Amino acid sequence: MTEAEFLAALRTLPLHPGARDLRDDCALIEIGGETLVLNHDVMAEDTHFRRNADLADVAWKLVALNLSDLASKGARPVGVLLGHALGGNDQRFIEGLRAALTTYGVPLMGGDTIASTGASTFSLTAIGRATSTPVPSRSGAKPGQSIFVTGSIGRAMLGFEGSAEHRLAFERPEPRIEEGIALAPIVGGMMDISDGLLLDAFRMAEASGTTFSIESLAVPVADRDRALDCMRWGDDYELLFTLPSGCDPPVKAAVIGQVVERGDAPLILDKEALAEPDELGYQHG
Amino acid sequence: MTEAEFLAALRTLPLHPGARDLRDDCALIEIGGETLVLNHDVMAEDTHFRRNADLADVAWKLVALNLSDLASKGARPVGVLLGHALGGNDQRFIEGLRAALTTYGVPLMGGDTIASTGASTFSLTAIGRATSTPVPSRSGAKPGQSIFVTGSIGRAMLGFEGSAEHRLAFERPEPRIEEGIALAPIVGGMMDISDGLLLDAFRMAEASGTTFSIESLAVPVADRDRALDCMRWGDDYELLFTLPSGCDPPVKAAVIGQVVERGDAPLILDKEALAEPDELGYQHG
Repeated sequence: MTEAEFLAALRTLPLHPGARDLRDDCALIEIGGETLVLNHDVMAEDTHFRRNADLADVAWKLVALNLSDLASKGARPVGVLLGHALGGNDQRFIEGLRAALTTYGVPLMGGDTIASTGASTFSLTAIGRATSTPVPSRSGAKPGQSIFVTGSIGRAMLGFEGSAEHRLAFERPEPRIEEGIALAPIVGGMMDISDGLLLDAFRMAEASGTTFSIESLAVPVADRDRALDCMRWGDDYELLFTLPSGCDPPVKAAVIGQVVERGDAPLILDKEALAEPDELGYQHG
Repeated sequence: MTEAEFLAALRTLPLHPGARDLRDDCALIEIGGETLVLNHDVMAEDTHFRRNADLADVAWKLVALNLSDLASKGARPVGVLLGHALGGNDQRFIEGLRAALTTYGVPLMGGDTIASTGASTFSLTAIGRATSTPVPSRSGAKPGQSIFVTGSIGRAMLGFEGSAEHRLAFERPEPRIEEGIALAPIVGGMMDISDGLLLDAFRMAEASGTTFSIESLAVPVADRDRALDCMRWGDDYELLFTLPSGCDPPVKAAVIGQVVERGDAPLILDKEALAEPDELGYQHG
């Protein structure tokens, strides 16, 4: 099965209401008047990191990309559960894990350690506490709202390609936790950019039943000569969000376009309608 | 690193109070006057299942062993998050997942689907709601209490070896959810048996600072001629628990021994003191 086929099959199973039909980044549990936000991401050798990667970077990234999903919900991290396959440089993994947990003030809650053969797989479940309800979703963008993005897009790509200046953006991405918490009470839609700005914008437009009109010259890219590459690459973990027109974001962010009524395509880039997600970014499976 | 060395290294990281120093089966989060119980277990090809295993059984077992950990805390399942590696018989995996989730009335909440190369790894995070506080732990056994076990021990071993009668005990183990909930308010210590009765009894005795004195003839084994093998094999997912003397368990269970003051060894089997965990059961890593 492809990832899309597998997801479609999963949607035929009994689903929790907080699963949001498996169309959002996190699951929600309402309990005792609070909302917990849960995320589970997996990283596998060869698929998500190279065989010779420093496992300290892998551990950092595993924490960061899970916390980035919590950030997109404006959730404050409570703790993480780790699934660890022994057999690589476990000491380096511990060091990267320590760096990430210490930097973001997130404690380890438990997990599972296994022996494994062949390629290593690491999994993490991050648990956070919503700071604002309703919890932001991909489906909250509305026509008339402006589209924003934090940070600079494409830095992870340049870091992956060997740029010393952007190396850390690829190896040790920084989840926008405080930005997400500041934005949660006022955004229309919000998500983190993991698979590329254009693809993720396409998805948010689809989920919201709107069209996103984006001006490429307005997008803060790390390399203007390769703007399209920057917007198609993933791994940036910046926040993409919409705000009512005239509303200034409480965090550093650039306005890159407008949400309009749904037209023929979910995405318009520089007046060109893009109806298919192909080649907009990184598609799994 | 071995699993023990890795666990020791994890204990030097920032730990959540609900992690119980990584010495228990589940993590606890207290929120809004309730207690959530979380468990994360991983199953890897070659380590936990054979390459030619039916992935429907693997999916069932992944759910069952996570729910078994919740059962040992008397927690009622709320939902699960799945980490799935595509590439095996994904359709069979979905079917086993559907059977387990439907049987135990547990909804899917979310997760992650990845492409992978080589051996498959599947992870699951189970979230439950504690039905009784304090939540039972491994460390609650006290001298004078009686030791009980549910069900019959060694069935999974016989099923693994090819016994038709016990095949399902190995392939589709049944977590003792209702038993755990009934027992939680009254037990001293409680845990599920995943690595073998003797090894897990040794661990509970250690965690409780007591000695467990067990009579092998009192243990309900699936094959009396191979009683020791039955007590050393894992994968039974029955509940091991202690109750104050004279207290009858509200579920079907056999009394197999007594908790006594800590002597030279954590475990006494038929009057023989066993001071080391080696050869008592399945040790990881």
